[in-house]
Amino acid sequence: MSSSGSLNPESDSFESRPVFYIGQHDSTRREALTDDQYGQVLSSGFRFVTAPITNQHFFNRVVDLHRDYLKEREQWAQQQGPAAGQQANPSLPAPVVPTLTDKDTSLFPGGYLGSLALYSSPWIDLCSPDPHISSISRQVLNLEAAYANFCGARTIVVPGPRQDDSSRGIAQYARAIREAMHVANRANVIIHMPMYREPGLEEKAETLSSIFNPEKEPEAGDKKEVDLFSAWDSWNTIRSVCSYSMRLFVAIRIPRRVPEKTLQERWFAEPLHYLTISQEIFQLNRAGHPSLSRHHQDLINRYMRLRSIPWLMLCDVGPRPEELATVSDESNAEFPSLAEANQALKENRRPHMSAMNAHVGYMRYLERQQPPFSAMETPALTSFQDWLQPPLQPLADNLESATYEVFEGDPVKYDQYEKAITEAMIEWRELKKPTSTATPENPSSSELVVTVAGAGRGPLVSRALRAAESTGTPIQIWALEKNQDAYVYLLRKNKVEWGNKVTLVKTDMRGWEGPRLKGREDAIGKVDILVTELLGSFGDNELSPECLDGIQNHLARPHGISIPHSYTAHLSPISTPRLFADISSRVVGDPNAFETPWVVRLFALDYVSQKVPDHPRFQQAWEFVHPIDVLRADDFAAVHGKAAKYVTGGLGSMAGASGTNEHNARHCHLTFVCPTRGVIHGLAGFFESVLYASQTGAGKEPVEISILPDQIDRKSRDMISWFPIFFPLKKPLYFPQDTELEVSMWRQTDDAKVWYEWLVEVYAWVGPNTRIKVGTSDLHSSRKVACLM
Amino acid sequence: MSSSGSLNPESDSFESRPVFYIGQHDSTRREALTDDQYGQVLSSGFRFVTAPITNQHFFNRVVDLHRDYLKEREQWAQQQGPAAGQQANPSLPAPVVPTLTDKDTSLFPGGYLGSLALYSSPWIDLCSPDPHISSISRQVLNLEAAYANFCGARTIVVPGPRQDDSSRGIAQYARAIREAMHVANRANVIIHMPMYREPGLEEKAETLSSIFNPEKEPEAGDKKEVDLFSAWDSWNTIRSVCSYSMRLFVAIRIPRRVPEKTLQERWFAEPLHYLTISQEIFQLNRAGHPSLSRHHQDLINRYMRLRSIPWLMLCDVGPRPEELATVSDESNAEFPSLAEANQALKENRRPHMSAMNAHVGYMRYLERQQPPFSAMETPALTSFQDWLQPPLQPLADNLESATYEVFEGDPVKYDQYEKAITEAMIEWRELKKPTSTATPENPSSSELVVTVAGAGRGPLVSRALRAAESTGTPIQIWALEKNQDAYVYLLRKNKVEWGNKVTLVKTDMRGWEGPRLKGREDAIGKVDILVTELLGSFGDNELSPECLDGIQNHLARPHGISIPHSYTAHLSPISTPRLFADISSRVVGDPNAFETPWVVRLFALDYVSQKVPDHPRFQQAWEFVHPIDVLRADDFAAVHGKAAKYVTGGLGSMAGASGTNEHNARHCHLTFVCPTRGVIHGLAGFFESVLYASQTGAGKEPVEISILPDQIDRKSRDMISWFPIFFPLKKPLYFPQDTELEVSMWRQTDDAKVWYEWLVEVYAWVGPNTRIKVGTSDLHSSRKVACLM
Repeated sequence: MSSSGSLNPESDSFESRPVFYIGQHDSTRREALTDDQYGQVLSSGFRFVTAPITNQHFFNRVVDLHRDYLKEREQWAQQQGPAAGQQANPSLPAPVVPTLTDKDTSLFPGGYLGSLALYSSPWIDLCSPDPHISSISRQVLNLEAAYANFCGARTIVVPGPRQDDSSRGIAQYARAIREAMHVANRANVIIHMPMYREPGLEEKAETLSSIFNPEKEPEAGDKKEVDLFSAWDSWNTIRSVCSYSMRLFVAIRIPRRVPEKTLQERWFAEPLHYLTISQEIFQLNRAGHPSLSRHHQDLINRYMRLRSIPWLMLCDVGPRPEELATVSDESNAEFPSLAEANQALKENRRPHMSAMNAHVGYMRYLERQQPPFSAMETPALTSFQDWLQPPLQPLADNLESATYEVFEGDPVKYDQYEKAITEAMIEWRELKKPTSTATPENPSSSELVVTVAGAGRGPLVSRALRAAESTGTPIQIWALEKNQDAYVYLLRKNKVEWGNKVTLVKTDMRGWEGPRLKGREDAIGKVDILVTELLGSFGDNELSPECLDGIQNHLARPHGISIPHSYTAHLSPISTPRLFADISSRVVGDPNAFETPWVVRLFALDYVSQKVPDHPRFQQAWEFVHPIDVLRADDFAAVHGKAAKYVTGGLGSMAGASGTNEHNARHCHLTFVCPTRGVIHGLAGFFESVLYASQTGAGKEPVEISILPDQIDRKSRDMISWFPIFFPLKKPLYFPQDTELEVSMWRQTDDAKVWYEWLVEVYAWVGPNTRIKVGTSDLHSSRKVACLM
Repeated sequence: MSSSGSLNPESDSFESRPVFYIGQHDSTRREALTDDQYGQVLSSGFRFVTAPITNQHFFNRVVDLHRDYLKEREQWAQQQGPAAGQQANPSLPAPVVPTLTDKDTSLFPGGYLGSLALYSSPWIDLCSPDPHISSISRQVLNLEAAYANFCGARTIVVPGPRQDDSSRGIAQYARAIREAMHVANRANVIIHMPMYREPGLEEKAETLSSIFNPEKEPEAGDKKEVDLFSAWDSWNTIRSVCSYSMRLFVAIRIPRRVPEKTLQERWFAEPLHYLTISQEIFQLNRAGHPSLSRHHQDLINRYMRLRSIPWLMLCDVGPRPEELATVSDESNAEFPSLAEANQALKENRRPHMSAMNAHVGYMRYLERQQPPFSAMETPALTSFQDWLQPPLQPLADNLESATYEVFEGDPVKYDQYEKAITEAMIEWRELKKPTSTATPENPSSSELVVTVAGAGRGPLVSRALRAAESTGTPIQIWALEKNQDAYVYLLRKNKVEWGNKVTLVKTDMRGWEGPRLKGREDAIGKVDILVTELLGSFGDNELSPECLDGIQNHLARPHGISIPHSYTAHLSPISTPRLFADISSRVVGDPNAFETPWVVRLFALDYVSQKVPDHPRFQQAWEFVHPIDVLRADDFAAVHGKAAKYVTGGLGSMAGASGTNEHNARHCHLTFVCPTRGVIHGLAGFFESVLYASQTGAGKEPVEISILPDQIDRKSRDMISWFPIFFPLKKPLYFPQDTELEVSMWRQTDDAKVWYEWLVEVYAWVGPNTRIKVGTSDLHSSRKVACLM
């Protein structure tokens, strides 16, 4: 094996796991590589390299400029004497940095420039409290950004702020980045941040601050304790000031000590462009090979699962500029294999080159060690990650056959339905409940009346028939479908598959007259088991409650069963910067984008709340149970114009509406606990449903389906029919540590529509008994994109 | 005097002080007044009354509905037995409240309805944690709001939430108000709040909560300590959820104990529709007449100074319904005078009517006791209160004569200029400084060269001539003006008023060649005293620094003087809900409205920060001093294409710009301290300028002008030329108590424009050494509405 397996399309590791894209950064490099040198680096296993935008000459020139300026100013002040000093301008600005010349850079358009990551000068200090230093720094960044952009750079890497967010300089830094992105109007800008500010990892390089204000430098060093989230906080400020630009990314420096899970998850949700790994992160294993700890491996493996796989940048690993010169005659040599590299290492031949190979080789080894893609990581499914879909309106719109087909492709869901129907049929017999077909003349008639309402292309009809067969239950079965095209399909299926056992009715279930029982065609009967699949990602969001209201008066009382029996909606506040950026970009074309509940396979997110007693990470918003109490059943019939006790002429919740759907309004107020600080962009919504709960006793587990992240594996593993729902916030809502997020949500309705309203309040605990309000979101409402009844 | 003086246009109090508009509210009134009764109330001195929207019949009906519903439900649950109970729907909603009938209200369209303040039922509880109570409450409010709106009501008063903002119910309350405003789509909605939640003032009236959940009531009573800002906090949540609707107002209940100034100021900034005063707030003076304490009087007087004068509503003062019936035969009787009322009181005749008269009479007395309008409260000036004006662009646009005339109408400003020129001329002689007209041949020449740059219609020329005359200083005077139309005016003025003493040049000052001295027409001389009036509300915002850069190379060195010598910009964060609402309403037509620095006579505002050592309420952002140091003078000349040491080909701050104006960029980072919680809507900006500072010693006060609220009276009292500037925030920024607001502001520039950028960060102190970040504004930029150079 002469090259890494993952690059070989024939290898079995190809595309069965994430691919590592490995580059090299040399912090001492002062000039861009020559074509020859670049070729050498590529042939040693790296796929890209960084290049400084400007060189030592430029650095010297800027330092000299400012030194001269300070000197001249001092001289002049002395010449003026103390009397004139009174008149001297106290806020004299910094000198203007002259534009670049060809001596200041070794970068020029063309060649391989587009594939380089251009590195802006690390010696500037945008945060400096010295207005001269910060002004010069900003000018240097702008000069470099503009030139890199002119040359055609795709990527400009900018070293992150040295100070943490509590310092005054971060706003200055963030504004400078925004200005640089305005100047470099095409290139991506990548802020190179530590994952957290690990003690002892401060860069000791020469900077404008260390040259001109050396006495002020120690400040950075005397940190009290490690603040895990301060680097993330700085990043959050930067990207907020840059309005979540889609061209702004972050590169995180992997620390020596892998931090706790909450911080790992935090960065997981951010737009990671690079993971950078310095030479000192590697350790030598017993055989003397570079390797990474198990924690580091896990961290990398986790991030490699992102849809946009971050690139790996090895820092100060690989050939140094002076070494490249010595090997130029071998520039076409084959990249040595891991074995060869090891051999070279043992024999102590060309140690630097061998070392370099070993690091890349090790990363290739890690690449092959990754767990292969699971069934849930097929390209078809991962392509949906963080992809916003407007929710279906199945009640108002007719679905296409292909959409039904997708739904039917989920065996887990239909297996659970079949199980529920089966148990219901068994228990019906066990409890000796009379069926609807029983008459005074024939009290022992035992044909169960089953109705599948909203049959679609018939999957639930097939399952009901199977359940009846397996349990030996005599049934009469009705299937209702409002979609005239699906009805054609059902008619054919009835002939071909179901042996004409099914009575098909083309109708909206809410307008159905009820079953005309066999042998008693004059009379309208009742339904014993009503089966529906009307649930959306948030349970009730596709109007299952309203549809069932319209048909449940046909359910036999008191024994009739609805499958599903009940469903609950659940919420959790999340940080999901990408979705915020995505929705922001849609607002121009879709002014309601921030008030639309989106269906989305949430992936690059951070659940900011923690599991604590009484305040779990996922909390139930509300529940619907079917059938609804008999006491109220008459009320709901009023929807269809019948008299009802409590609603005659009632106004209900909205002007002009009769309040007939008011009983399906809901409200919840939930409290989520966040120990660490962060930002939320919206609420993730999920549902669970009890399809059938045993009526005979407590011993039996209910038959359930769930898309709750902490329940799905237990209740309906590998079920793929539903992605979560996402209720966005118009503005990211920042919260300090020890926060409680109070979520209010309403399911609102008039006679014609259903929509949601949501609001988040932030309260921080600042003492054992003191909780202060620190912020509130807008009240959001999806009324303008409401679900039509 | 048979009627109150302030109603009489002939009286001397008419319009020389704010007018009181006094109404009456009776909390026990259950029906609207009849026309007769209404007439009686009006004739007793009130100008408006409140009327309940619904009556006792409706209240009884709603209570019965819910009682019956609960009873039936319980019975049904018992019938079902424990087995069925398992199936009972746990989240059964509340009954639907039927629409109103003519028995439920005594209000009908027409008549005097438009002048009534309609009061919604005080017995509802929108905040209730009992979902039935809150649902019924919401339905009742919607029924009433819809009906009042239908009848043509202009004003619907809604009792405020009973709980404070830390309770879970406030979001529910706020959402219900938003819904009611949607239902009542024309009427104004007024939330009736206490100024603060004064202990012992809780209403004890019967409510749905007290009827159905009596055990839960005590909660409201057992308050720990008075939280002064909790009522304001609730109001802030309500209006935020209602998106600062222009139809939403607040009525505040004057408390028994007048609270501290900070809370008074807080409410001063809010849209106060009514001040309500309950009977128990009045005290009897020695003569047995109702009166208010001095603190109460001051409070009322202060609020009466608002541009939209709040109406006064006396609660439970005046004839009760049963009393009105007894006096109906006297309904046309004249309203008795204060003297008559007193007489009646002494004789104990018709005690209730007399008491009523006494309260109104006392308020009329207070009306006359108000301090009269000051010179700064002329209608011409008060009409500018909180009125947003886009800033002038005097450099890019030419002003009209009327605009100049307004400027010239401010004697304070020009007196200060004259004083500055006078002092400069005296000192010139005292210090024996050589003038520009001195030549080797004639070294003792003593004609001072004075130039007024941007002369407009010449006010400063007149003042300079006067200063020369009064000090006996021989001068040569130039006046430059770029506006060709103003130039015509100047030519005429020179002939008519100035005796042709002035050399007029039609030029942009930045393009002037310099003075051709008399007797030496071949040579270009220098200017000794340069006088300009280029300052804007924020000092440099009308580009004074840029203009002076363009002319200061003509200033004689080292002795030349610029008047003004220097100017500083100052900031303070403010709460100003009305301006936020106003700007919000403009965004559709003007997408940059929130990134425009507005010139506005700030009035209904609250300075949220407090004066503490090192952190005053008004803080200096930056300073400009003229002339700028000789060392840099060459640089600025580069603007006009000349060679300069530091800028040759310089790129400066922005791509494509040469950086020639970079020296006029500024940045500041200021920290404001807020002990109490609140919300800010933007930054108020001001300026100060030293027109001339004595060069002879420290003993002399500089000649200054200032628009800083805490300095103007000392430095330039009654100066009206400048209103403050307002830098808005896109989103109101809430902050908890013990907060530091960190304000970053930048004056940014490229070669063609100048603009500002601003950002506010919120940090709260939560322990002696712990400061946490709780929020940040967007970075705002006025680049799109930048000042053109």
